[in-house]
Parts: sequence; C-alpha cells; structure tokens
Amino acid sequence: MKKYSEMSKGELSAVHGELNAKFGGYRKMGKKLNMTRGVPSDDQLALSDGMLTCLSAGDYKAANGADCRNYGGLDGIPEVKKIFADLLDLTQDEVVISGNSSLALMFDNVAVNMSHGVRDGEPWQKQGKVKFLCPSPGYDRHFTICNYFHIDMIPVEMGEDGPDMDFIEKAVSSDPMIKGIWCVPKYSNPTGIVYSEETVRRFARLKPAADDFRIYWDNAYAIHDLGGTYKTIPNIVRLCEEYGNPNMPYVFASFSKVSFAGAAISCIASSKSNCEYIKKRLTAQTIGPDKLSQLRHARFFKDAEGVMAHMKKHAEILRPKFKLVSDTLNRELGGLGIAAWTEPMGGYFVSLDALEGCAKRIVALCAEAGVALTPAGATYPNGNDPKDSNIRIAPTFPPLSELGEALEIFCDAVKLASVEKFLN
Amino acid sequence: MKKYSEMSKGELSAVHGELNAKFGGYRKMGKKLNMTRGVPSDDQLALSDGMLTCLSAGDYKAANGADCRNYGGLDGIPEVKKIFADLLDLTQDEVVISGNSSLALMFDNVAVNMSHGVRDGEPWQKQGKVKFLCPSPGYDRHFTICNYFHIDMIPVEMGEDGPDMDFIEKAVSSDPMIKGIWCVPKYSNPTGIVYSEETVRRFARLKPAADDFRIYWDNAYAIHDLGGTYKTIPNIVRLCEEYGNPNMPYVFASFSKVSFAGAAISCIASSKSNCEYIKKRLTAQTIGPDKLSQLRHARFFKDAEGVMAHMKKHAEILRPKFKLVSDTLNRELGGLGIAAWTEPMGGYFVSLDALEGCAKRIVALCAEAGVALTPAGATYPNGNDPKDSNIRIAPTFPPLSELGEALEIFCDAVKLASVEKFLN
Repeated sequence: MKKYSEMSKGELSAVHGELNAKFGGYRKMGKKLNMTRGVPSDDQLALSDGMLTCLSAGDYKAANGADCRNYGGLDGIPEVKKIFADLLDLTQDEVVISGNSSLALMFDNVAVNMSHGVRDGEPWQKQGKVKFLCPSPGYDRHFTICNYFHIDMIPVEMGEDGPDMDFIEKAVSSDPMIKGIWCVPKYSNPTGIVYSEETVRRFARLKPAADDFRIYWDNAYAIHDLGGTYKTIPNIVRLCEEYGNPNMPYVFASFSKVSFAGAAISCIASSKSNCEYIKKRLTAQTIGPDKLSQLRHARFFKDAEGVMAHMKKHAEILRPKFKLVSDTLNRELGGLGIAAWTEPMGGYFVSLDALEGCAKRIVALCAEAGVALTPAGATYPNGNDPKDSNIRIAPTFPPLSELGEALEIFCDAVKLASVEKFLN
Repeated sequence: MKKYSEMSKGELSAVHGELNAKFGGYRKMGKKLNMTRGVPSDDQLALSDGMLTCLSAGDYKAANGADCRNYGGLDGIPEVKKIFADLLDLTQDEVVISGNSSLALMFDNVAVNMSHGVRDGEPWQKQGKVKFLCPSPGYDRHFTICNYFHIDMIPVEMGEDGPDMDFIEKAVSSDPMIKGIWCVPKYSNPTGIVYSEETVRRFARLKPAADDFRIYWDNAYAIHDLGGTYKTIPNIVRLCEEYGNPNMPYVFASFSKVSFAGAAISCIASSKSNCEYIKKRLTAQTIGPDKLSQLRHARFFKDAEGVMAHMKKHAEILRPKFKLVSDTLNRELGGLGIAAWTEPMGGYFVSLDALEGCAKRIVALCAEAGVALTPAGATYPNGNDPKDSNIRIAPTFPPLSELGEALEIFCDAVKLASVEKFLN
C-alpha cells in the first residue's frame, strides 16, 4: 500500500477518477444503510423475548411483598436493587432504580442540581455560568443535556487510558464554576477505550474547588464486553469514599442494551447519603417507576450471574460485526496514512479519525451513497470537532451483510475525501 | 337526632363519657385500617390481570411498524395515542404519551416552565416570585410540586360547580406573576364535585395578565364514574381554542386507575403547537417512554370503547364502598350538625368538613384507634387548612368489611372531637 501522502499528483488523480466513478454508481443504487446510532439488532432483542411472557397472571408480588401492580415503592423492588448492586459491586442502599431511560435520569439529575443545588446547597444556576468538562470525542446526548441547560462545555482530550487527567486536575481544582464532568469509563462512547486504574484513582482523588462538583459516571457499557478478557474498572464509589470524596460520583447504568432498549430499567448509584437526597426529590416528583417492568427483569434474569450469562449471548452476536469493521478498515484503509481507528473490546462504537477537515465530507459522501452516519462533529461539544476529523461508526444494528456493504462505501468515502484533500 | 349545638352540658358530658369509653376499647384492639390514599383495591387490579400475559413472544410491533422492544418513538405508539385522543375527544397530534406517572409529567412541566419558560419565553423563575392559584381543598401532591419549586400558593375556595371563578378571573387578569392554576375538573380531589359547563367556559375565556399563564387541568378521573349517569365536562382544549387561548391548557390523564396503578401509562394533551414544544424538550431528555407497556395497554383494551367497558367493572367494585361511606356517615352523623360531606358520583374520595378546629383532633383520634387517614390540612396549600375542618376519606383500597370498621371508628372520632369542642 502506498500512502496517499507519498503519491504523485497523477497517481492521486487516477485514484480520484476511480473513486468518483464508484460513487456515481453508489448514488444510482439508492441504498439505505444505517450506521448512525448504538441500537441493538433484532437478533439481540430476540435474546430477551422470554421477558415478554415471563409473568403469569398470578405473578405480581415482589420479594418484599409489594404488589407490583399497585402504587408504592420509589427506589426499586429488592430483587432488582440486588441485581444492580451486585453488578456494580455496591450495596442496595447505594442504588436507586428508575424507569426505562438512564438518559432521563442524567437529565433530571442535572436539572435538580441546576434549580435546587447539590444536596440542598446553592443552586448551580444561581452561582454564575456553570461549566462541565467534556472528554471528547464523547457521547452527543451528554452534550445535548449541557446545551439544554446552557452549561458551558470545556472539551478535554481523550487518550488510550481515559481523558487528559493533568488538564482535569488543574481545571477542577482552580475553577469553582466547573460543576461536572461526563465520563463513559468503560468502552467509552465513541472511542471504546477503557479508563485505566490510575485514571479512575485520579478521578477519585480530585480536589475540586467547588464542593458541589460532581462526576457523571455513565457506566453505559459496564458489562458490555465482546468476549475474551472481561475488563474491569475500579469501583468509583468505593474509591471516592476512600479518598474522602464520598458524595462526588453519580454512577448511571441501565439494561437498555441488556434486555429491551426501549423498555428496560435504569439505575443511579452513589453514596447512601446521596441516594437519600435523590429519594427525597422523588417523593415530590413521581409515584415511582414501573414495578412490573422491574419484576419482569427479576424473573427473566434471576440474578447478576444470569445477567452476565445473557451478556455472553449479546457478545456472540456483536463480535462478528466488530470484527467485520476491523477487517474492512484494515483491508481498505490500512497503510494509506489517511485514517486511524479504534478496535474496542466492548461497547457499541468504533471511532475513526480521518485526515483533518475530512469528516464532514466523508459523512456527506456516505449520505449521497445511501449510508447514514452520525453527523460529523456530533461527538464534540456543540457539534464542533475542531479538526473535523472524528467519525463514530455504529455497527450493531444492521445485519452483517448490510454492515459489510455500508463499510465498503464508507471506506471509499474516506479515500475519496482524502484524495480530494491532497488534490486541493 | 338532637344537634350537638342544642344539647345541654349534661347531655354533652354523657355523650363524651360514652365515646371516651369506646375509644378506650378501640385503642386496646390495635386495629390497622387504612383510608389515607386513593389506591385501587386488589379486586380492581385483578380486572387488568390479563395485561400481565397479553403479549406473546412474537408480539412486539406497533401499528406503525415500530419494534416496541427497541429505541425510538418519543410521543407514543399510534394505537395508544388514538385511545387517549378518543377518550379526550382530541386529535392524535394533541396528545403526547408518557411513562407510568402523570404526576411526573406535571412535575416536569412545571420544572421546564420554571427553568426554560413557556414556549421558550422568559423562564418563570427569572420573572420574580411565581404564584399558582390552588382551589382548596385540593390534591396534596399538586401543592407539593409548588412547594418544591418555591411557588407561592394562593388558595381559592371550592364550590359545588368548581372553584370561585370571580376570584380567579380577577386574580389572573390583574397579577402577571400568577402563572398557573391546579384543577381536577371532574370528581375533584377531594370534594368529588364536577366543574359545571359555565365554570369550564369561564376558564377557557380567562384573560390572563401573563401570556405565559397556564391551566394545569389534571383530568385524573375523566372516566372514573361510579355508574348511573356518565358525567361529561366540556373539552377545555377546544374551548380555549375557541376563545383565542389555544395554548393555555395542559391536560393530564392517566391509566393509573384504569389498568395498574404502578405500571400504567400517562398522557399530556394540549394544542398541537404546545405538543411540538413538549416533544422538543423530550429529545434532550429521554429515549422515550416504555413502548411495550403501551403495547400491552393497546392489546388489552383494544380501543376507547374497551376502556369504557372496563371502567364499568371498576364502578361495580367501587359503588358499594362509596355507598357504605354515604350510608355510614348519614346514619352516624346525620342530623347532629357537626359535619357536612360530599356524595360524589365518581373519583376516589369523599370530603368531609368537620366543625372548625376539629380536623386534626379527628385524625389524631383515628390514629390512636388504628385508622390511618390523610393528615388533616393536607388538602390545603402548605398543609394549612385555615379552618382545620377538612378531612379526605379514601374508601377505595380497604375491603368492604374493613372499610365498615374504619368508618365506624371515624364517625365516633368526629363525634368525640365535636363534643370536646362544645365542652371546652
């Protein structure tokens, strides 16, 4: 393979002509292929179909005797609290179970801290312009929440072991208006990296200038390994406790990519004391989450071990898709010097860095060819990737054959945009 | 029956001695009877047990082809939108379906207007001290929401046809910081009255000083009739449209007392334009409500007619309980001149007004005798019933026999507190 940077103008023109012709063809074919979002496939959903029918007519009582059909119970039935507590290695009074959307939990948690303050402290919104640190590339919906609440986002560079901790330590200890940071510590969205033990420890021993600084620890892929070695990350709640910051982390987890994406259960985990504050608000806010959905999860999975066994089935389905991404990118783009990408061992995404200034063009070319990708820039605060380089690939939803087609077109788009760059 | 007010001191003392002795007995019996909250009974929940099993393993697609197991769909599947739209006599783009708690919808709607303003206008919280009108006695959880958001509550007197509209018209048209009013227009909580057509029309043609004034129309008992004549109230959304206030009302409804109290679905209804604003926020806030729960409701009830037929079964169970309340109160308290009460044709409560200054004492006496009631004052803003007179009776949850026992003790408590008042 010859690097594009080492090609002559003539060689580049030849490649350009070839790729242009290919795209002419793609445009005519009118494909409809989708790699936009981290959505489970039909096969994965089918793994949990037993949950549709796992309750019989007389089965509606939780272990504590609660009638799951009726009112009552703000923080989850014991069976489900135990499953989450076991998976997160916490106690049951360190978890609060919620509805089907952990995103809604995060949104609500930011909302309450803005309007009512952390643990009844001075509301963030009354203190001045609130800022969040945003390791980038990151999860676009985290950034959307900040945008919604007019929170300034400070991008933080991501490395192989997590975000730039030197930067974070300095920023957090010097600026009391930095109130939060978004983290996806395991199989980070979109790069797929796993925070190292040292990174997690540095988080736990942060010395924030603001005593109402909080870590939003979105452990969305806590148990979403592709197989092989099961990665573990240190327990942020325990470590924060150990380093004298017991109330600093909010951990979020959900079964959206365990059972049914649209009808699962979610959880916020933190110190027991933080959980008490959360429950206090819930008393004014809601009659409590859907307990029958919780009971279905408890009956279907039985316990944390049942969940882990189930995740192996997800991995069986996902592994070939991630392998196809890796194989295709290596075969088509390897050695050309026009892109770098990650090869995650879990999670839902592959992240690709194209040449600077090429991401938007690649996404546009794909769109013309019928391949929908996450908008370029979406992985950065305010949709602004300063290098216009990062693209998030979401390979989970399409069947393998469609994924293959989409990846072929995608690689051609990366090549074409790169050639155009060299020719201009 | 001789009125207490016409009894001699001697007669009162005799009654007092008798009742005191009875309470001595009650205290020893250690009963545990509960009339605190509007909770459906086991019998009522059993009416919907078919919903536990109504989905088969292959049944997860909505009418629009959406896979209810997966992500997607912010405002409800078409089947459920149609059921709510038909029940509320609105179109499908005037309803947004939500999770299992309409209370959470109301809370969230107040939260967004406080922090982000009505329809992207100036946030309420930036305009000064926000005030809500609170027809009282009313629903304690409405008042709790106001308390949570530090909203001043202005009590408005309730009559037979709804709240005091003269007062409301004057207040709303003169004070731009009055931003909302809580209404339970049909079988009002707790008095059980139904707003008259004229009352509803006067609401629709309010001329608020604040263009971001909103009517919180909690139609919690829209179809919760006890049988007999089905009461209808005018369509507030249509009327507001007609009078040039199309975006003024937010209507809330839920199936909490139709299917399963803890695992139902809820709905906010308003102008199409308001619904667009609501959906805009949802995009940042959530992945959308649980669609499998929606599908279960659609399969089980089929359509609005199915829902109405189901409500007749609820009425069969509830009617004897409300009759027992009425019979007992009439038999025990009739003619004594110490209490007035309502005889609602639907809803979940009976409201009793004791002599001034007696409500707290009655609730305390009941507690000593093992009968739990809603705290006295709870039906007023800040828990403050200025006359200390109103008590909410919630007869739905206990089985008939227990309800009978509880009512006997309750009536004796009303008598004892009244006698005490006359003797002091």
